[in-house]
Amino acid sequence: MKNRKILLSEQEIPEKWYNIVHDMPNKPLPPLHPGTKEPIGPEALAPLFPMELIKQEVTTEKWVDIPEEVRDVYKLWRPTPMFRAYGLEAALDTPAKIYYKYEGVSPSGSHKPNTAVAQAYYSKQEGVRRITTETGAGQWGSALSFACQHFGIECEVYMVKISYEQKPYRKVMMNTWGATVHASPSNLTEAGRKILAEDPDSPGSLGIAISEAVERAASDEKTKYALGSVLNHVLMHQTVIGLEAVKQMEKAGDMPDIVVAPFGGGSNFAGISFPFLRLNLEEGRNIRCIAAEPSSCPKLTRGVFRYDFGDAVGMTPLLPMYTLGHTFVPAPIHAGGLRYHGAGVVVSQLLRDKLIEARAHDQVECFEAGVLFARAEGIIPAPETNHAIATAIQEANKCKEEGVSRTILIHLCGHGNFDLAAYENYLSGKLVKHEITSEQIAAALAKIDTPVID
Amino acid sequence: MKNRKILLSEQEIPEKWYNIVHDMPNKPLPPLHPGTKEPIGPEALAPLFPMELIKQEVTTEKWVDIPEEVRDVYKLWRPTPMFRAYGLEAALDTPAKIYYKYEGVSPSGSHKPNTAVAQAYYSKQEGVRRITTETGAGQWGSALSFACQHFGIECEVYMVKISYEQKPYRKVMMNTWGATVHASPSNLTEAGRKILAEDPDSPGSLGIAISEAVERAASDEKTKYALGSVLNHVLMHQTVIGLEAVKQMEKAGDMPDIVVAPFGGGSNFAGISFPFLRLNLEEGRNIRCIAAEPSSCPKLTRGVFRYDFGDAVGMTPLLPMYTLGHTFVPAPIHAGGLRYHGAGVVVSQLLRDKLIEARAHDQVECFEAGVLFARAEGIIPAPETNHAIATAIQEANKCKEEGVSRTILIHLCGHGNFDLAAYENYLSGKLVKHEITSEQIAAALAKIDTPVID
Repeated sequence: MKNRKILLSEQEIPEKWYNIVHDMPNKPLPPLHPGTKEPIGPEALAPLFPMELIKQEVTTEKWVDIPEEVRDVYKLWRPTPMFRAYGLEAALDTPAKIYYKYEGVSPSGSHKPNTAVAQAYYSKQEGVRRITTETGAGQWGSALSFACQHFGIECEVYMVKISYEQKPYRKVMMNTWGATVHASPSNLTEAGRKILAEDPDSPGSLGIAISEAVERAASDEKTKYALGSVLNHVLMHQTVIGLEAVKQMEKAGDMPDIVVAPFGGGSNFAGISFPFLRLNLEEGRNIRCIAAEPSSCPKLTRGVFRYDFGDAVGMTPLLPMYTLGHTFVPAPIHAGGLRYHGAGVVVSQLLRDKLIEARAHDQVECFEAGVLFARAEGIIPAPETNHAIATAIQEANKCKEEGVSRTILIHLCGHGNFDLAAYENYLSGKLVKHEITSEQIAAALAKIDTPVID
Repeated sequence: MKNRKILLSEQEIPEKWYNIVHDMPNKPLPPLHPGTKEPIGPEALAPLFPMELIKQEVTTEKWVDIPEEVRDVYKLWRPTPMFRAYGLEAALDTPAKIYYKYEGVSPSGSHKPNTAVAQAYYSKQEGVRRITTETGAGQWGSALSFACQHFGIECEVYMVKISYEQKPYRKVMMNTWGATVHASPSNLTEAGRKILAEDPDSPGSLGIAISEAVERAASDEKTKYALGSVLNHVLMHQTVIGLEAVKQMEKAGDMPDIVVAPFGGGSNFAGISFPFLRLNLEEGRNIRCIAAEPSSCPKLTRGVFRYDFGDAVGMTPLLPMYTLGHTFVPAPIHAGGLRYHGAGVVVSQLLRDKLIEARAHDQVECFEAGVLFARAEGIIPAPETNHAIATAIQEANKCKEEGVSRTILIHLCGHGNFDLAAYENYLSGKLVKHEITSEQIAAALAKIDTPVID
C-alpha cells in the first residue's frame, strides 16, 4: 500500500532561514517615518524590537543561521509531516495530485510558533523581561505564550475583541502557558481608549490590537513588541516550512505546479511559498504560488499598492504595501487571523512584480471546502486554512475539466479545534457571506492620506 | 543536539494486534447471561456486534491480522511519535528518564480511532448501515464519527449529558464528520426514559449512555453497537500503541521500568501496556505497568472483583470485573472519559493476579500535573491523560528521593484542546476535589445482587 505521509528526521530541520529579499529582482521600497514621511533606518525600530531581529529585518543576506536553541525547541513538533491527499483526490475525482504540509502538529496548533520561538529566543538573549503582542483568532497569541513560557519571559496579549468573545478557550490556552490576555480595544492604552471613545462597541481588529501592544512596549525599556506576520524577519522565520516542503516533495519524487496558502499579513504564505519561489528565481522554474484571502478583506485582489500604516491608529512606520486603508475594519468573519488591512512589504512587492498570484474566497465557500476536507482527510482545518483549500479545490476541478494532472501543494497551516463554533454556524446554515462593494473599498481608501506610489 | 522524538515509518505500523489472553496465566472467567446467570457463548453478542468482532472477542490466538484497509487509514496519523520529555525531566530535576507516547496526533485527538477504524471497517464488510455508541468526554464519539464517515456508515452517538453541556464543541466535531449526537439520558430510549423518570436532572454516565446505545442497536437488524473500551477486542485493537512503543524504546536504546496510563474502561491502559506485559510474561522481565484512575471513581483501587453489568440498567451480559456497582454515578469530574463504574475483564484479571498495579489521583492533583507538563513540554494534555502524568511525577520524584534513575513511559493519550474550560476552572482556583467515602462505596455495592466471585 502507498504511503500517505512524507516524513523527515530531526536532523533535517533546516539550519538556516531563507531570505528571499536577496533574490528579488526589485527590492522592497524603504519604510517611511510616520511624521516626516522620510525614509527611516533600522534604528527607528530599536524601541520596539531586539537588535538581532532588527538586523534580520533589513538584511539582504540570502541565508540566516537558525540558532541551535531554536532548532532544539522546533524539535517538539518539527519537521512537520507532508501528506499525499488521497482522500481529497478521490472525493474530487480529479486527475490532480494533491499534497498538504501540516503545521497543526505544533503545541499551539498552527505554523505561528516557528517565529514565536525565534523572537522569544532573541529577546531572552538581549535581556527582555516582557513581550507584548496582538492576536486575532488567537493562533499567534497562543504561539507567543508558549514560546515566552519556554524562555521564561512574561507575555501580554491584546486579543481582538470579537475573537476574544468567540473563542474563550484560546484565552485559557494562553493562560495555561502563563500569559496575560486583554480584549482589544481595551482601556489600558491611549490607542484603545481612543477607539472606544469613537465606537464603544468596536469588535476590534488586528490593526487596533497592534496599536495597543506597540504603545505598551514603547513605554517600558525592558518590554519589547512581537509581531506575528507582515515584517520581513517574521516571513523569513516561517521559511522552515517551505524548506522542509521542498525536501519532502523531492523525497516524493514530485514537485508542485501550484502552491496555495491562506493570506493574512503574509507569513503563512511566505513560509511555504518562498522556498519554491527561490526555485523559480534561481532555476527559472514556473511554480505558481497563490495567496488565498477572504473576499471580505481583499487587499491583494482589490486593494491598492501604496504607503500605509501597519496599525489602525498610525503609530508604526509607513510601509509600501497592498492595503485597504489602515482604518478599514473587516467584517467579523470566522477567519480572524486574516482580518488585516494590509500585506507584508516583501509579498506586496512580489505581487506587484507578478511573481505571485492572489485569489479571494467568501467564507461560506471556505467552510464548504473545509468540511469536504475534514470528511476526506480527517483533519478539521482552521477557518483561515480553508481559504487555501478552496483555491486548491478550484485548481483540482480545473484539472478535471481540462483533463490534465497537475501537482498542488496546500499549506494546511492549522487545525480548527478552536473554531468549531464557526463550523456549527456553517453546518446549521447560519453562516453569512460578507460581500464588500467597490464603494466601501473606495471609501476606506479615501480616509488615508499617506504617500502614493507611482 | 539530542533528538526529542523517536519516529517510525509507515512501514513500521504493526501488521498484527497482540492478544494478551493467549499469554495470561489465568484466563478470564466467562460472561454470564443477565437473566439466567449461566455462562454464555459468543452467539449471545450477535445482535449487537459484527461477527468478526465477536470472533476477536473470544479468540485466544496470540496475534490477529490488521487488515490492509485499516492500516491504510492508520497512516493518516500512525505511527505516532514518542518523545523524550527533556523539559519535564528538567522541571522536576529528577534523575529519571521520562518518555511519552503521543496519541493526540490523530484526527480526533486521542488513541480512540485505533479501534474505531477497525470496528467501522468490519461493520462495513458485514453490511451494517448504522452504528450507535455512547461517549463520555467525547473522545470516543469523535473517533467513531470520523471512522464511520470514512467507511460511509451512519453514526449515532449518545453523549453523557454533563459532557454534552461542558463540551459543546465535541458535538460539533462529530457533526462535522456527519454524525448525529444526543444528550444522554435522552427520551429516545426506554433506558433513558427510565433514568429521567427517577432523576430528571441526571448528569448521565457512561453506563447510562451505553444502555441507550445498546437498546437502539438491538431494535434494528442493520444497526450495530460499538464500544470504545472494556471489551477484549477493543483492548486488543489498541495494542498498536504499545507495539510501536516497544520498537521506539528499542530504537532509543532504552526500555521502561515503569509504564503509566490513564484508566477508564481499560483500552487506553491496555493499548500501551500489554505489549510490555508480554515481555514480562515471555521473557520474565519486570516492567511495572500502572493504571492511573480518578480517586472519585476508584474501581481498581477500592472496588470489588465480582460479576457486574457493563451498563447502568442491566442489559448487557454479566462480566467478571473490578467494579463500584453498575448503578454508581461518578462525580462530574472533568475527566469524563474515566467516569465508568467497571474495568475491562482482561485488565481486571491481570490486576487480580497482581501482574499490573493501580493508583488513584484527585482531579486537582491531576490538573496541577497537566499544567506543569504543558509548561515544560508544550502539549496541553486531556484531563484523562493528566492522571498518568500525576503518577509519572510521583515516580520521578521517588527517583529523586532515592537518588536512582528509572525509565518512565507515559501514555499521553490525548490533547486537551476541548478541555480548556476545565483548565480555566483549575487556573482560577475553582476546581474542587471529589473525595469518596468508604460508606458511599459500600452503599453503591450494596445495590447490586450479581454473582460474587470467590
